[in-house]
Amino acid sequence: MFVISIYEIFSKIYILKNITIKGWVRSRRDSKKGLSFLSIYDGSTINIIQVVVKNSLNNYNTEILKLTIGCSVQIEGKLQYSHGKLQKYEILAKNITILGWIENPALYPMSAKKHTVEYIRNFCHLRSRTNLFGSITRIRNVIYHSLHNFLYKKNYFWISTPIITSINTEGAGSMFKVSMLDSNNIKEKKFFNKNVFLTVSGQLTLEAYACSLSNVYSFGPTFRAENSNTKRHLSEFWMLEVETAFSNLDNISKLSETLLKYTVDKVLNKCGADLVFLQKNIDSNIFCRLNSFLSIPFVRINYTDVINVLLKKSYEIKENISWGNDLSIQQERYLVEKYFKAPIIIQNYPKSLKAFYMRINSDNQTVSAIDVLLPNVGEIIGGSEREERLCVLTQRIHELGLNEKDYIWYQDLRKYGTVPHAGFGLGFERLIMYITGLKNIREAIPFPRTVKHADF
Amino acid sequence: MFVISIYEIFSKIYILKNITIKGWVRSRRDSKKGLSFLSIYDGSTINIIQVVVKNSLNNYNTEILKLTIGCSVQIEGKLQYSHGKLQKYEILAKNITILGWIENPALYPMSAKKHTVEYIRNFCHLRSRTNLFGSITRIRNVIYHSLHNFLYKKNYFWISTPIITSINTEGAGSMFKVSMLDSNNIKEKKFFNKNVFLTVSGQLTLEAYACSLSNVYSFGPTFRAENSNTKRHLSEFWMLEVETAFSNLDNISKLSETLLKYTVDKVLNKCGADLVFLQKNIDSNIFCRLNSFLSIPFVRINYTDVINVLLKKSYEIKENISWGNDLSIQQERYLVEKYFKAPIIIQNYPKSLKAFYMRINSDNQTVSAIDVLLPNVGEIIGGSEREERLCVLTQRIHELGLNEKDYIWYQDLRKYGTVPHAGFGLGFERLIMYITGLKNIREAIPFPRTVKHADF
Repeated sequence: MFVISIYEIFSKIYILKNITIKGWVRSRRDSKKGLSFLSIYDGSTINIIQVVVKNSLNNYNTEILKLTIGCSVQIEGKLQYSHGKLQKYEILAKNITILGWIENPALYPMSAKKHTVEYIRNFCHLRSRTNLFGSITRIRNVIYHSLHNFLYKKNYFWISTPIITSINTEGAGSMFKVSMLDSNNIKEKKFFNKNVFLTVSGQLTLEAYACSLSNVYSFGPTFRAENSNTKRHLSEFWMLEVETAFSNLDNISKLSETLLKYTVDKVLNKCGADLVFLQKNIDSNIFCRLNSFLSIPFVRINYTDVINVLLKKSYEIKENISWGNDLSIQQERYLVEKYFKAPIIIQNYPKSLKAFYMRINSDNQTVSAIDVLLPNVGEIIGGSEREERLCVLTQRIHELGLNEKDYIWYQDLRKYGTVPHAGFGLGFERLIMYITGLKNIREAIPFPRTVKHADF
Repeated sequence: MFVISIYEIFSKIYILKNITIKGWVRSRRDSKKGLSFLSIYDGSTINIIQVVVKNSLNNYNTEILKLTIGCSVQIEGKLQYSHGKLQKYEILAKNITILGWIENPALYPMSAKKHTVEYIRNFCHLRSRTNLFGSITRIRNVIYHSLHNFLYKKNYFWISTPIITSINTEGAGSMFKVSMLDSNNIKEKKFFNKNVFLTVSGQLTLEAYACSLSNVYSFGPTFRAENSNTKRHLSEFWMLEVETAFSNLDNISKLSETLLKYTVDKVLNKCGADLVFLQKNIDSNIFCRLNSFLSIPFVRINYTDVINVLLKKSYEIKENISWGNDLSIQQERYLVEKYFKAPIIIQNYPKSLKAFYMRINSDNQTVSAIDVLLPNVGEIIGGSEREERLCVLTQRIHELGLNEKDYIWYQDLRKYGTVPHAGFGLGFERLIMYITGLKNIREAIPFPRTVKHADF
């Protein structure tokens, strides 16, 4: 028994060979001539393989004619060229074993009927059975590996930063608390002898490694306990964080742009069939959009200049525009989609808008920080130079009323052989949204966690 | 200014070129002839580059002669062949800029003095500055990427399984609770409308993806709230979990062995210089040990036969040996290190020792499960066939007194197109320990979390 995946059928030469495939029924069609046609998927590719079943098979009447969408099967047969126009190959079945039936097909949530993504979201354990979530999973996999490979080739080392943490990187924001209850589940026991939380960012600990190994990154889950019930926020999401010693804002701006373009290029090269599916079902402009992303240089502009642009165009944007305010999502979208018609990197934000660790510019009003904004999804990357001057850092900790005791180890990095360094964080699911054209971030992660939702 | 890393000096041809490097001082030696020799590291490699400094440099007396270990510097000069016997290349400095001093060198915890790993563990934010933790980080990076690449090439898709979860995969064991306190930090608010915990394994959700996309894996942090203060346990550790549809115990046993050998082979090929360092400082037998690991086939043996072996040798093992008991660490080590002198895969454990989801064998006493044991570290992989028969699974849920309501979605995977499938979990830090020869798992992760320890 020579078992191969459907992906292998389409990528190697097995024509006229006897093969075995294992997968699930996508559809069944019976002809009047005593023939049935099964479409089989196994998830290895978006492509299905057509299986031709003659009524001479001993289980044709008893089983084959009862197959419904979702049944699992093992099919032995000969791979041959298809006479049909829709497919290149087909399998002429010699033997079909039913591995698993669908109990009560009328109640199967992933039936042939076309459902909305919102409906399917109620069945996160089954939704990867649809073409859409199969495609998203395969593309997500390629994006994930491309990010890793890009950094590996540049001699960046992957570091696992802790999930359970006693520090709050952003100096504010809501964190989830981690605790342990006693055996009666009533009284909290201090497992770690201190209050601990789920990390909002691994950056501070990552800096410790950058200040010894130069080029490092982390890629793991991060958490926000914020009640933001929007299409762009999750309570648990994956973040790529990159930290580079001896580098500045210009370096990380370039690195961000190169990294994003490298990744989109890989998706275009490796996910053609899945992108064709998305083109038909999610974004008809997807190829054009991703190709032009590769060719358009990111616009770099100072926050102050952005405010001036918005003030000039204030008749178009009916919102409060003032130096010192954070940009609203509407303002960001206006800049990216209408004004510049390109991804933009906004630099040098007012210090009051940003975290304590960002390097103060010589104007003492702004920090050396960037936000990278993309069409449709808005902010995808936030980064900065890190304050490497001990005295300035300490002053900022005081100014912002943080507890200096929590940051003694972080100050050590400046006390002992400090170096200029910079880094950024990339929201992984936002990148999935941008590349695939998905409108809601809940579709960009297998099991989304949001307010009131933590099933599974 | 042509900036390169020390890794690049040793891997490309820059001889007689003017280059700039940025890094930290590992040592300084002054000759009587008015010359100083600096050893510089930048973390890109274990290798240091020697820098020859003449006293004609304008900051020679004011700065160079004051440099101590850990100071950060930028060095411009010419790369030339070295006359010394210890190094191939050296840089003849033309200009040296001090970027950061060591405040009070006598108090610098990472001084030139050789410290124990236990002492250094008190300074996790600085320990990557030592040669040992630099090497471990680079090897860890190669192991991490090798595991990913192995699976990527085999067309496995990476899935992120949720960290915050409402299910308990192992059906027992201590989990950390995740909560959110109100603004006064007193009353718990139900952010997710139910009790949620930190995951002990992503397996159950990963199965949902295997039952639609066939070959999948996850690789992320997992948690145990157990008070196990041993050298082999962490409260937070990384786990690789692999799940394969249409596969059985034999398939995953082979896959485990191939995966481990692929990874060790990559480390031998890519981490030569770091392994030489470990050979001198951690395990003098490391090359021999890793090479023989590649050539020795894993021994496969049933649990029942293991018990018989132990009973025959009971005079050597002064411990309670009885069918139905879990093996102690001493017994496991005896089998691997003394009896078989090889990695072993123990199969078909008593069902009472294993979780509810493992497939019951036809004897109705054992489950189709494996543990992979390695010398020194013991269990490194645990895996099993998953019970794909709905009625048997439901019976097991009842037998073990689990709340069936929590597993309705998991039963759905069997109700709708069920398939035989199997998978395993690999403890990443245990693998780091095995490959590097480290004796304590706290050295195998950048910021270890154990009872009473969650700094940073």
